[in-house]
Amino acid sequence: MSPGALRIGLLGHGTVGSAFERLLAERSGRVAELTGRVPQISGVLTRSSGSFDDILERSDLIVELIGGTGDALDYVRRSLQAGRAVVTGNKQLLSHHGEELWGLARQHGVALGFEAAVAGIVPVVRVLRESLAGTRIERIHGIVNGTTNFILSEMTRTACSYETALLEAQRLGYAESDPSDDVGGADAAAKMAILARLAFDAPIHFGDVRYEGIEQITAADIAYARDLGLALKLIGTAERLTAGVSVRVHPAFLYAAHPLASVGGSFNAVTVEAEAITEITMSGPGAGGMQTASAVLGDVIGAASAGAGGAAPMPEPVPVAIVEDVVSAYYLHMEVADRPGVLAQIAAHLGDQGASIKSVVQRGLGEHAQLVMVIHPLLESQLRAATARIGDLPAVQSPPRAIRVIDEEFE
Amino acid sequence: MSPGALRIGLLGHGTVGSAFERLLAERSGRVAELTGRVPQISGVLTRSSGSFDDILERSDLIVELIGGTGDALDYVRRSLQAGRAVVTGNKQLLSHHGEELWGLARQHGVALGFEAAVAGIVPVVRVLRESLAGTRIERIHGIVNGTTNFILSEMTRTACSYETALLEAQRLGYAESDPSDDVGGADAAAKMAILARLAFDAPIHFGDVRYEGIEQITAADIAYARDLGLALKLIGTAERLTAGVSVRVHPAFLYAAHPLASVGGSFNAVTVEAEAITEITMSGPGAGGMQTASAVLGDVIGAASAGAGGAAPMPEPVPVAIVEDVVSAYYLHMEVADRPGVLAQIAAHLGDQGASIKSVVQRGLGEHAQLVMVIHPLLESQLRAATARIGDLPAVQSPPRAIRVIDEEFE
Repeated sequence: MSPGALRIGLLGHGTVGSAFERLLAERSGRVAELTGRVPQISGVLTRSSGSFDDILERSDLIVELIGGTGDALDYVRRSLQAGRAVVTGNKQLLSHHGEELWGLARQHGVALGFEAAVAGIVPVVRVLRESLAGTRIERIHGIVNGTTNFILSEMTRTACSYETALLEAQRLGYAESDPSDDVGGADAAAKMAILARLAFDAPIHFGDVRYEGIEQITAADIAYARDLGLALKLIGTAERLTAGVSVRVHPAFLYAAHPLASVGGSFNAVTVEAEAITEITMSGPGAGGMQTASAVLGDVIGAASAGAGGAAPMPEPVPVAIVEDVVSAYYLHMEVADRPGVLAQIAAHLGDQGASIKSVVQRGLGEHAQLVMVIHPLLESQLRAATARIGDLPAVQSPPRAIRVIDEEFE
Repeated sequence: MSPGALRIGLLGHGTVGSAFERLLAERSGRVAELTGRVPQISGVLTRSSGSFDDILERSDLIVELIGGTGDALDYVRRSLQAGRAVVTGNKQLLSHHGEELWGLARQHGVALGFEAAVAGIVPVVRVLRESLAGTRIERIHGIVNGTTNFILSEMTRTACSYETALLEAQRLGYAESDPSDDVGGADAAAKMAILARLAFDAPIHFGDVRYEGIEQITAADIAYARDLGLALKLIGTAERLTAGVSVRVHPAFLYAAHPLASVGGSFNAVTVEAEAITEITMSGPGAGGMQTASAVLGDVIGAASAGAGGAAPMPEPVPVAIVEDVVSAYYLHMEVADRPGVLAQIAAHLGDQGASIKSVVQRGLGEHAQLVMVIHPLLESQLRAATARIGDLPAVQSPPRAIRVIDEEFE
């Protein structure tokens, strides 16, 4: 409580919370040098001990690492209302309740740091909020979930099945025992909602993001990707379109020269595109206790540097239309009977929807051939109309599987 | 002069200066929203018009885009002394006179932004000053000169000579008519001095950086690199060693999996390594008028955001020893007469210096064979001792050419 102390209340003491406590102790001198205040943990709230009210009373700054939208929402809200700076790594909280919390931070004139909520130590939040604050951003592509990137990288490296790669990810601690939030795309969707909010100043939240996961990806898809020189990734996209903005997460094939194509293992990476900057790509470990704790520490230093080092408040959001039906190129995988005229029928249904075929490969013969196509960009609604009709053809044995293809150079 | 105006004095009106003026006009509403002040250019100093004293008097913030260490030093010094925030893209100025200017900024409590001085829009300065302010950085590798990266990429892509690639770079505007600052490594050395200052808080300046350029690189070196799965780049390195720090710039072979190996064309990229963060890589266009102007604009917004958005002052530097003799793996290229015992003699001289050979390839026969080796890490002084003796062998027709090899995975 000495003058010049920076009293930090720590909510949550799991992997990241305990790593943060260690890191803060280790870097205490450096923090004091930069902020002019000696950091100290004024209280730790765990599931079984500590009182939030006591900790709030004794703290200048609250670090929220509980996660979720229950107690965390209540605590962050009350901290901001009490005029305390907050640093959080909670993507659920911000993708669902961000506007309320950013509004409270503006209203009470306090910092709300959240670098650790998106892509771990990859400094995409700060770069969007500060370095690119004046830039009109057109598009963001991101690999923002390390679990799925590890699984897809493992399937590529060893040609194993999705199930085998998931087990390996669980064994190594890259996937939780219930991996559904990660592999189903919801985790990436929450992060993309936050990035879209930052990029477009629009009140985008979790419910605005369309997402698909990687559970349906097969070893065959990965094998075709390799043959075609493509990498298969779970990609988050946030982009400005004529009619509004689109924010979505889905598996996608990337051309080998795309800056995200070579991001392997559990790494995260984000590419930001704008006319004035061309593009910037940032990559690094997306998770890990110490890495995430480092992102938290960067925000703590920013929030505590008197009159400097923190971001300006989040600007008031301006509503924008959410575009659901967007244009993509697609890879189509079909199980067909190899009979005369089948390809012509498929091509006719695609042509009816304005889709033109870029390449076709057939593998196998007879009643169980596989037809793989890459088609030029069309609206998702057109793709669905075409694949519904193709699925009804007698020679086509199951509905076509469609995976998006990203990269202008691929067109 | 209206209250709430942000009066910007612009020194220099070349490519970046005029791009900045256009960008500021275009993004004026956004800057006002973020800073609460409407930006206006209060004066422009060119070679032929404008008075610095007048402009200083009428400005809240000075943008210095003159370059060099002549007038620019005088103007920046006087601006800071007059309590004006300064944003500069001048790497020469900061790599030679940074300590004086950062000291003045501290003393007068004003911001001194310099994102545009290193790697253009790639936000490495802000990330080091803010996101990683609390992190103990171990090493930085950077491709920080777009001209040389373009030339080496072109030599790789088309198998052309250095001279041909340089002409192409000049034709496309990536190289100046006198390219010596870029191709000789001095430009990259200035940028690495600034990054090392940021990473290590040590008073490192241009004179502390050892540098070599790419003028001696041949089409044959590039061809060997391709065969060995290596990329040849001009790499800046700043690293903490037991005895101090080393900062250097030289051509180097990178293992294909290194995050900088795939950075092509005129792009810049920087990898920051630290125990707590593993590594972060950032890449993007290193130059270009609009891109550099965007970096300047980000700093202007930061400096003008009252009480937020700017970095804390640069900490006082702590002196450190500069290590000259560092350990690297090497590629050696020798023109030899293919006689019995030559390889044994060469190997003996290497062995005398503690160098062990990782791989050897011989091409050609008779009196004009080529011997290419990759050797395990040794001190530069040991390498020079070994190559001097090898060059004296009767069967070796010219001194061996040595190029460093970077990547632990390669060892």
